[in-house]
Amino acid sequence: MLTKDGREFTRGEMPEKACRAGEFVFSAAHLDHGHIYGMTRALIEAGGTLKSVWDPDPKKRADFLRAFPGTVEARCEEEILEDRDVRLVAGAAVTNERCAFGLRVMDAGKDYFTDKAPMTTLGQLAAAREAVRRTGRKYMVYYSERLHVECAVLAGYMIEDGLIGRVLSVTGFGPYRVGPREGRPDWFWRREPSGGILCDIGSHQIEQYLYYAREEDAEVTSSRVANYAHPDAPEFDDFGDCALTGKGGSTNYFRVDWFTPDGLRTWGDGRTLILGTKGYIELRKFINVAADRPGGNHLFLVNGDGEQYVSAAGTTGFPFFRDLILDCLERTERAMTQEHAFRAAELSIRAQNTAADLTPMAGR
Amino acid sequence: MLTKDGREFTRGEMPEKACRAGEFVFSAAHLDHGHIYGMTRALIEAGGTLKSVWDPDPKKRADFLRAFPGTVEARCEEEILEDRDVRLVAGAAVTNERCAFGLRVMDAGKDYFTDKAPMTTLGQLAAAREAVRRTGRKYMVYYSERLHVECAVLAGYMIEDGLIGRVLSVTGFGPYRVGPREGRPDWFWRREPSGGILCDIGSHQIEQYLYYAREEDAEVTSSRVANYAHPDAPEFDDFGDCALTGKGGSTNYFRVDWFTPDGLRTWGDGRTLILGTKGYIELRKFINVAADRPGGNHLFLVNGDGEQYVSAAGTTGFPFFRDLILDCLERTERAMTQEHAFRAAELSIRAQNTAADLTPMAGR
Repeated sequence: MLTKDGREFTRGEMPEKACRAGEFVFSAAHLDHGHIYGMTRALIEAGGTLKSVWDPDPKKRADFLRAFPGTVEARCEEEILEDRDVRLVAGAAVTNERCAFGLRVMDAGKDYFTDKAPMTTLGQLAAAREAVRRTGRKYMVYYSERLHVECAVLAGYMIEDGLIGRVLSVTGFGPYRVGPREGRPDWFWRREPSGGILCDIGSHQIEQYLYYAREEDAEVTSSRVANYAHPDAPEFDDFGDCALTGKGGSTNYFRVDWFTPDGLRTWGDGRTLILGTKGYIELRKFINVAADRPGGNHLFLVNGDGEQYVSAAGTTGFPFFRDLILDCLERTERAMTQEHAFRAAELSIRAQNTAADLTPMAGR
Repeated sequence: MLTKDGREFTRGEMPEKACRAGEFVFSAAHLDHGHIYGMTRALIEAGGTLKSVWDPDPKKRADFLRAFPGTVEARCEEEILEDRDVRLVAGAAVTNERCAFGLRVMDAGKDYFTDKAPMTTLGQLAAAREAVRRTGRKYMVYYSERLHVECAVLAGYMIEDGLIGRVLSVTGFGPYRVGPREGRPDWFWRREPSGGILCDIGSHQIEQYLYYAREEDAEVTSSRVANYAHPDAPEFDDFGDCALTGKGGSTNYFRVDWFTPDGLRTWGDGRTLILGTKGYIELRKFINVAADRPGGNHLFLVNGDGEQYVSAAGTTGFPFFRDLILDCLERTERAMTQEHAFRAAELSIRAQNTAADLTPMAGR
């Protein structure tokens, strides 16, 4: 954590738990994306009590039960939705089914915490907004690349402390390793269920931009997708990029792709560059490429005081999850406003819907 | 230099001189930008023979003569243009005067080598194209951030050798330190003489993109400028960015700005990221921020073989200048085609002319 003047970091001062055991009971359902494990673990670490799990696939249920022993194996989705103990349901369904499930969760009087992207169409978004208004429940989103990465959390504290002045521009790189065709479910390769690259992994990038630049809204200035090298999966975008202009005059650009080379020691060289009037921050989230130090969470801060490297692992923990539980218990918006969560999703969908497809230009 | 399979680098194998002393005589005139020193030195190192210098300002002439003793101090521009020994004139005039001077040089039967940006308007560009056709002379441009930076040269060799496959996307960052108001000439702060940020320092970025991605032409997909923090210089752009889509379906994004923090050990943390189908290259051109190793020319290569750091200083020299001299002597296009030099300029001007100005949105 940063001290007030932003120069010192006290390692190991993790966020306290939000509540005592049993005070915040949640369940997990629809386990299509592996993110459900990170979401569940983080809620437990923040004080949540995992009660039950459901997925139509017995193998997915069994895997989850092995990771979280003692969890009740529900017999159907309804068993969870009807359980009066359960305050929140975490889910990582196929992307285009996340909204429909969320509506069922909220209609059952529970808060919803879904993997990103939280939905794939503007119609789903409108339905989600309406359900939030009608039920008063939350539709929160696991934008993991900021919320569950300590250097990304630390960057937020530094900006808050004024260490780089007013944020003018955020640039993000989200490269991922795609791996063998058979290593991914069928829906991953198809446009409608996955939502496309800008909607899916682009949503991390847009959320980060809005957060770091303190922008409430933005316009999609330019967006592009392409399938450069996966002719056997013609609906798949292996490349996407996007420029946004914030309502407050700041700028964003990000590039996402599935071209992490085999020789990289991890799945992706994710970066975030944040330019402010008085300095800049670079995050090398998951690897400092070709450098000896292993692991991620590398933060580089340059401002009037000089250049500073901070190994951010162990500095902040993940306050989002504590705050999310408190928000659910106390009906506040500490962790993230509903509008912010939806706005990032909306812009991701708009970027995808209006993207120029470069595939034919590239001769494919 | 890379060996054929691209794995080994032999340091110190610098390009040979293009010719013997006296075989390629050149002069320098219009010394408004300090780049003229780098241009002159590089031509001399490549085998050129500097004969004379001219600038209307006696102080600029005197400074230049101190740096290059033995140079003839011409009494006027005409003295250089009428000198039959002189084959090429190097110039770094105020940006919007570079073209007019170039036309005089070419009309005098000499090749022209100008600092970037080579011109500031599409009208000037048309005149330059016409003069090249009419006179058969060259209008070459000192795009120094690729041509005069060894890691940038080495990246070109690596791409040629196929080390990262087909180039899909190039991203560039060109941050600069602006320094005190009085440290820059008046024309630097004004739109018409300087051409604006995308035309000026943006031209480096666009030239690099076209070169690395092997694109002959591109479209400006989005461009933005702003004056976020220099209210006393209202015509000055302290920020600019731009996205280009190549004719062959590749993409480019770059950001240029004047926000290098005081604490950075050099004038700018210039970066180039080149994504290919089989790997990627990152250039940290002038500094590896917060790392011990001083100086620039840091190249990071990631592909199927792993992650590799290459300290590129001393690996390639600057073959452009040798090739430029040979091109002038033999009327070839080894160093750079005329069309490439003009296309980069054209796109820079178009990006500037069509840029959205974010200054009012940012509340200024």
